Amino acid sequence: MTGEFELIRRLTSLIPPAVRRKFRTGDDAAVVPLAGGRSLLFSTDSIVEGVDFLIRGKGAGRPGPIGHKALAVNLSDIAAMGAKPVAFVTAWGIPKGFSEGRVLRAAKGIARLARRFQTAWVGGDISRANRFFISIAILGEARTGSIVYRKGARSGDWIYVTGTLGGSILGRHLSFIPRVREARYLAEHFSPTAMIDLSDGFIQDLGQILGGSHVGAEIELDRIPVSRAARTLARGSNRRALESALTDGEDFELLFTIPPRHGKRLEKSWRKHFPAVRLTRVGVVRRGPGRMAWFEKGKRLEKLWFRKRGFVHF
Amino acid sequence: MTGEFELIRRLTSLIPPAVRRKFRTGDDAAVVPLAGGRSLLFSTDSIVEGVDFLIRGKGAGRPGPIGHKALAVNLSDIAAMGAKPVAFVTAWGIPKGFSEGRVLRAAKGIARLARRFQTAWVGGDISRANRFFISIAILGEARTGSIVYRKGARSGDWIYVTGTLGGSILGRHLSFIPRVREARYLAEHFSPTAMIDLSDGFIQDLGQILGGSHVGAEIELDRIPVSRAARTLARGSNRRALESALTDGEDFELLFTIPPRHGKRLEKSWRKHFPAVRLTRVGVVRRGPGRMAWFEKGKRLEKLWFRKRGFVHF
Repeated sequence: MTGEFELIRRLTSLIPPAVRRKFRTGDDAAVVPLAGGRSLLFSTDSIVEGVDFLIRGKGAGRPGPIGHKALAVNLSDIAAMGAKPVAFVTAWGIPKGFSEGRVLRAAKGIARLARRFQTAWVGGDISRANRFFISIAILGEARTGSIVYRKGARSGDWIYVTGTLGGSILGRHLSFIPRVREARYLAEHFSPTAMIDLSDGFIQDLGQILGGSHVGAEIELDRIPVSRAARTLARGSNRRALESALTDGEDFELLFTIPPRHGKRLEKSWRKHFPAVRLTRVGVVRRGPGRMAWFEKGKRLEKLWFRKRGFVHF
Repeated sequence: MTGEFELIRRLTSLIPPAVRRKFRTGDDAAVVPLAGGRSLLFSTDSIVEGVDFLIRGKGAGRPGPIGHKALAVNLSDIAAMGAKPVAFVTAWGIPKGFSEGRVLRAAKGIARLARRFQTAWVGGDISRANRFFISIAILGEARTGSIVYRKGARSGDWIYVTGTLGGSILGRHLSFIPRVREARYLAEHFSPTAMIDLSDGFIQDLGQILGGSHVGAEIELDRIPVSRAARTLARGSNRRALESALTDGEDFELLFTIPPRHGKRLEKSWRKHFPAVRLTRVGVVRRGPGRMAWFEKGKRLEKLWFRKRGFVHF
């Protein structure tokens, strides 16, 4: 079996080009145009026992946070396009003998997060399965003109990231709050030229924006906001915390680009609106499709000192 | 673990009542009102290896029909409400070492059926899983006023079923063509008072309409359209083919009710529009919530001669 991206490419090639154009697929969510200048966003994401989490036996996680995560990853996909989540459905795979209490606790984790973002849980389906899974499909909506894709970054744009990066495996991958409010605020007031949620690691997801936009980037490594968890992981390991911040998956922070004329205004208003959420300018978009240049202490590196580029979840 | 219906009830109780009302949940699909007198329908259904089908080892089915079924069950849910399917997303669970060729053949089964019903495959997600699964979430759309629910059957309405029933396990459960065109035709020209697709067996699904509509029914057993497959199954078994027709799951035929004044007109125009699809009046709606009365050769039965009521897929 080839990798995930290649398989997705082959599956996508089965979708007729006219459909791909009409519905604008290939981003975090598909965009379905409605009347009146508005669009629906439609997306799906699953989490599977033994792959994304453990729920039985040794090392098992609590069901509430697992349900929370199942919805949070979907909210994050809608948020990354600057849209408002509206409604979702859940497809459950439940093993024989699995306790109903655990299912209900997972469901409560979903319901609590849904309430927080006023997103309506409107239905679902239950199947027998050998491993517990939760597949969620979500609808969002947005003004068609304010939707943010991966493909709009232009040379000269500034590159920003929210929060701090790396080490989510220590807990944040289950408990994170998706950046729904932050992303909507950005989309409504600053028209980012491109945006993505960091699910597969900074380098890999930056690569998605650069590839989609046919541009390159210069990144200042000293500015990368390294999380406390990444530093904890680095202790007693031979891996720098910075490497963790650049390659660990499931940060679910926002990575976006905006023209420099909006940058100063954004930084000022951000501190007022989201005082608890760090916002960091980490680099600038350059010409040269897919090319990444790395700077540390003002000097350009020949190349990075590690090979791993991101989180391979397949 | 209690049964599926009880678990669904408990999960549903976690959805705030205001949301349940606004989005009209509890039917084959949730209904999300749009502007301009139109509504979106939103639904999800999964099929799981080892539960709904085998795809590896002895007795394995071909991947194409498995993909076909994954989409067909979802189309059937949208059809049952009289709506037009519009777009869908797929969430795949793929075991390690599972051949890419099989995934692509399943995907081609999906793509072929999607083309047939002009439904757009707009995206998806791939996860590692221990068992192969395909979760599909689908959007449909309809004039809000023409949507058919389970709850509108009234005493005196005639009860109809399309096609023939029972024995789908011999093959039809994988190869069936969802009644999308038939259901749209019914919704547009005959305003059924209630409709459902037969997934859990005639008796159980009729029970859903009767429960939703707070009515009862008289069913003429001699009129039940027993399939050839049900007769094949009955041969050399001590179970009547009729029992199979009444209780086997996954027929995916339409069961619906309409006022008698529309009945004659429907039967005539049906033969013209769908000459290859049988349409049978099997009974009449009566007062008495949930009560089913059974008639055979003009005589009312005290009770049915078997206990099983439907397909328990959980």
